[in-house]
Amino acid sequence: MTDSYRGKFITFEGGEGVGKSTQAIKLREYLEGNGLDVVLTREPGGSPGAEEIRQLLVTGGTDKWHGMTETLLHYAARAEHLETTILPALRRGAWVICDRYADSTLAYQGYGQGQDVDKIIQLHKLVTDDFWPDLTLLLDGGVKLGLNRARKRDDMVEQKIREDRYERMGEDFHQTLRNSFLDIARKNPDRIKVIDAEGGVDVIAGRVTEVISEQFSME
Amino acid sequence: MTDSYRGKFITFEGGEGVGKSTQAIKLREYLEGNGLDVVLTREPGGSPGAEEIRQLLVTGGTDKWHGMTETLLHYAARAEHLETTILPALRRGAWVICDRYADSTLAYQGYGQGQDVDKIIQLHKLVTDDFWPDLTLLLDGGVKLGLNRARKRDDMVEQKIREDRYERMGEDFHQTLRNSFLDIARKNPDRIKVIDAEGGVDVIAGRVTEVISEQFSME
Repeated sequence: MTDSYRGKFITFEGGEGVGKSTQAIKLREYLEGNGLDVVLTREPGGSPGAEEIRQLLVTGGTDKWHGMTETLLHYAARAEHLETTILPALRRGAWVICDRYADSTLAYQGYGQGQDVDKIIQLHKLVTDDFWPDLTLLLDGGVKLGLNRARKRDDMVEQKIREDRYERMGEDFHQTLRNSFLDIARKNPDRIKVIDAEGGVDVIAGRVTEVISEQFSME
Repeated sequence: MTDSYRGKFITFEGGEGVGKSTQAIKLREYLEGNGLDVVLTREPGGSPGAEEIRQLLVTGGTDKWHGMTETLLHYAARAEHLETTILPALRRGAWVICDRYADSTLAYQGYGQGQDVDKIIQLHKLVTDDFWPDLTLLLDGGVKLGLNRARKRDDMVEQKIREDRYERMGEDFHQTLRNSFLDIARKNPDRIKVIDAEGGVDVIAGRVTEVISEQFSME
């Protein structure tokens, strides 16, 4: 799966309502402004089949799945997304921005829901040939504010079925998530950069583009 | 996952329309007639969540999923089925009869659809802790007859959505499957017994119960 490719693979990670989707859109604008071919996508989902699997994950009771099932559903969606969307884009030289990727599985299913983190890493190797982003931007901010934002967003969006299964997992769970993402970042300092997610949208976007221009030359 | 348990885990394997479901029902009758607690189940499916995943697999276009996605969806359903249905039944001492299990993933996704068989075996170890049946009955019979039987069965069942995705994969694919199952049986002679599936239902059921009484003492 890890054929040589020319594009860059950038992921946003972080808890609910921390501003990942908004910052992903801002980053797309910035990169396109630099004349780059950009694909903006998300997980779970990002391709027609993976979006079908997403529906099994983001709706319904919080204890709907056994831990291993939930991890495998995320990886089924990820395998489909990689083959259909991410890898073809990278091969043609596009920059791919993805809202969540494997760090979310480590944080949510591993640290948060108690699945063995080493097993998830083994599964990641088996499924993706150990394929990781060139750069991961971890948006770090207060849990309470994030959950309120996420709920407000859900109220605004017209949805037949609310995609709020993870949001409903309780404040303790989300505090654990925040600490988990920071721990994953400490263990992967070259790949993951922590961005302070408190402040206005444009202030945070400025922090993102600062990291981007430190990490990559864009020509 | 492989806690010590008291029941027995018996699977039926084989191609489409070879008579697995019918023989599974006959075997249940036979074991219940011997005073045993029996659970009859199937894959993919066999628990509410796993049946939801089944729908993604048995309907729609034959090339709907990338190979790794399809394998992971089968293992997501299997993990859920094991935790919800199979292992609890075995722990209370029931005999579990299952229509298809991991040998079908090896034959269909591995040999048939070209996924790396060693990767599937690694995935099996990771997900199930290398949990295999006490006995597998491979029903072996002609492909053409089986496909005709499967199609006739589908015509008789009232279904909103036809569960025939695998049947539609062509006769060559199904001939490969038959050979694959026989090859898997050759490699696992202690666990897998091949049963000639040509003949009347009761004749075949007699062959099944002969193997059962050779393998297990029932008291």
